[in-house]
Amino acid sequence: MTHDLSPLRKHVEEIVSLTDSEWQFVASHFEYRSLKKHQFVIQTGQVVDHEFWILKGLLRTYSLDENGKEHILQFASENYWISDYHAYQYQMPATLFLDCLEDTHFLSLSFESRELICKEVPAMANFFRVKLNYGFVHLQQRVLSHLTQTVEQRYERLIDEMPHLIQRVPKKLLASYLGVSRETLSRLKV
Amino acid sequence: MTHDLSPLRKHVEEIVSLTDSEWQFVASHFEYRSLKKHQFVIQTGQVVDHEFWILKGLLRTYSLDENGKEHILQFASENYWISDYHAYQYQMPATLFLDCLEDTHFLSLSFESRELICKEVPAMANFFRVKLNYGFVHLQQRVLSHLTQTVEQRYERLIDEMPHLIQRVPKKLLASYLGVSRETLSRLKV
Repeated sequence: MTHDLSPLRKHVEEIVSLTDSEWQFVASHFEYRSLKKHQFVIQTGQVVDHEFWILKGLLRTYSLDENGKEHILQFASENYWISDYHAYQYQMPATLFLDCLEDTHFLSLSFESRELICKEVPAMANFFRVKLNYGFVHLQQRVLSHLTQTVEQRYERLIDEMPHLIQRVPKKLLASYLGVSRETLSRLKV
Repeated sequence: MTHDLSPLRKHVEEIVSLTDSEWQFVASHFEYRSLKKHQFVIQTGQVVDHEFWILKGLLRTYSLDENGKEHILQFASENYWISDYHAYQYQMPATLFLDCLEDTHFLSLSFESRELICKEVPAMANFFRVKLNYGFVHLQQRVLSHLTQTVEQRYERLIDEMPHLIQRVPKKLLASYLGVSRETLSRLKV
């Protein structure tokens, strides 16, 4: 069955233009997958040779500490990219879990395919470069928020970025992303 | 006076190859600058249309909170890139200070030049893309360290990455990067 990849083309063409033949080449390297809520895409220790782009649904990456506590690094819903990027970039075993918080439809791109696409289609190298610039800035702002902001300000920042999260995930998970307890988050006037 | 940009060519060619004419084109967009210890490259409120690559010396970006406390976002020594990337990427006024912790020699690249270089020389788009992948992973690990690690572990991680910092900056500045007080850092067995 062929899946409609036009949302991905739209996503890419918000930043760069592709000819039809470039798009065909790019699209041929993405593989469609779907998983149910609670299923894992990545578990710690696995080799991670793919990153993922979300068509519909919601996933998260998290690490599990020695006391069994979850720490959420990232949420990814429609149009977001996600993986265990440390494992993916360094070709090391995963140190994160990646699982579905909803039934999820997504596209999968291997490391090898990404590098090939970026060599063969210069516009795609620029696409990933520009996306990474925004991702880099986003993470710098998140580090700064840990250094300078109150939990309340960090919560508001998260909800500004992903307003739909409030409806889609329990507050316990928002607390885990913010690095505070569920009780601390409940006490806030948010 | 013409400055020797060969360290930058070496830095770029650790990741991608350039022909001599590509390198000439790239190099022509960098401007040499030098500043003394304590001088500012960026102050809050300024327009930020350049990023910087360090030939020799040490700089930092930091934000100043309403109580006058400094929070260090990044250190950059030889071969590092630095700017107020939020301001640079979004073409907004700076919210960070960038100043010299030592006399510093560096190269300056404008936003416009970077985009032009990446369009005209596809290898350079890939160079910046790959550097950003590593930078992105580094920042994800730093966010995780705030969620999961002790101050001691975060300190060891910083010193692993930039071992020369111990000799080059006072502990007060390391504490500011880690988000703890000078006193807390002193109490650690590090």
